[in-house]
Amino acid sequence: MKQSIIVSVDIVLFTLSQSTLKIVLLRRDQEPYAQQLALPGGYLHPAEDRDALAAAERVLREKTGIVSPYLEQLFTFSGGVRDPRGWSVSITYYALVHESLIAPSAGHRFELLAIDALPDLPFDHNRIVAHAVQRLRDKSSYSALPCHLLPPLFTLTELQQTYEHILGTTLDKSVFRRKLPDLDFLEAVPDAIRQGKHRPAQLYRLRPNKQLAIFDKTM
Amino acid sequence: MKQSIIVSVDIVLFTLSQSTLKIVLLRRDQEPYAQQLALPGGYLHPAEDRDALAAAERVLREKTGIVSPYLEQLFTFSGGVRDPRGWSVSITYYALVHESLIAPSAGHRFELLAIDALPDLPFDHNRIVAHAVQRLRDKSSYSALPCHLLPPLFTLTELQQTYEHILGTTLDKSVFRRKLPDLDFLEAVPDAIRQGKHRPAQLYRLRPNKQLAIFDKTM
Repeated sequence: MKQSIIVSVDIVLFTLSQSTLKIVLLRRDQEPYAQQLALPGGYLHPAEDRDALAAAERVLREKTGIVSPYLEQLFTFSGGVRDPRGWSVSITYYALVHESLIAPSAGHRFELLAIDALPDLPFDHNRIVAHAVQRLRDKSSYSALPCHLLPPLFTLTELQQTYEHILGTTLDKSVFRRKLPDLDFLEAVPDAIRQGKHRPAQLYRLRPNKQLAIFDKTM
Repeated sequence: MKQSIIVSVDIVLFTLSQSTLKIVLLRRDQEPYAQQLALPGGYLHPAEDRDALAAAERVLREKTGIVSPYLEQLFTFSGGVRDPRGWSVSITYYALVHESLIAPSAGHRFELLAIDALPDLPFDHNRIVAHAVQRLRDKSSYSALPCHLLPPLFTLTELQQTYEHILGTTLDKSVFRRKLPDLDFLEAVPDAIRQGKHRPAQLYRLRPNKQLAIFDKTM
């Protein structure tokens, strides 16, 4: 059985930088689209990769040096026209990391671009990014997902701002705080208080094994 | 570039029959696992299929004669051990149809089995079904998805029962009815009343273009 289908993985890696939701892009070193910025991606290696998730972790590590604590399958894009090399399948993933994990290292060069200021990307990468942004926004409204863009300890104000940067909108502080008891994925860290300009703020963290607790999903 | 990866599509087709959530299974006519019940699936045909969704529609039509109004990509399963023929990718879909669309026709033989009474299926098909059931339940709690298991016109009692069959739990009638105004995907059909044993019941339908309206997803 001869199918001749190209199978790749591509990764949309989000971070929050300068209060802006950004993604990691790499300049392609090979044709097609050599020298253009594109999503980190690469061929799946059947001899090496256990499955597509392992391939995504490998490609991200090899091409950017980044290991993301959160990596989720997004969607599989496919067809005869998306890649000039032939009928192709791209199993895509999205990742969220705190900015401190994105240190440009020796041998890895990438750029961080704001999601609302992207150039025309090769293949269907703009469509993949749009899909990832939509998923991130949808899922943020009922999960702890945005916490992965924060450092391990954070204040409720920082958490609210992160939700706001993702959703692209301002949230009412009292409504946000009223919702918080439903978010059982959070816990106050005992004796961890940050001294701020105004009054001291309690620090919070994700509960272990509650990284994606869902609320508002029962009738 | 030689990858030698098998690319297939597999479909979990749900229906509600005798008040039970069931899926369509086919007896395999070829090795591996010949004669065993498995999900409808098949190789992707690059020369014929526009993309994986088109492949899923084609495979479903060819193998079962069924055309599903609702077909959504579920997840892509992959790896070196899930198929004895080699490293493989299965782009999976799930579909929901009203029982009346599942007419066994000449040349198409399939079985309907309750999701909680499935045998051991070949490949990772039990895992695929479990994933589909979870997605269906998650998504049902905030969308019009269950309506696809109903006939075009239905009563609110029938709608509630459908949610109950999917979620595997009993819902409080008054809570369910209070939620309904949020479900703006429904509309009462003018002058359509069903005479029942007790009192007449208004008939409802899905609003056009509101087939998957989401509620409870904003903060």
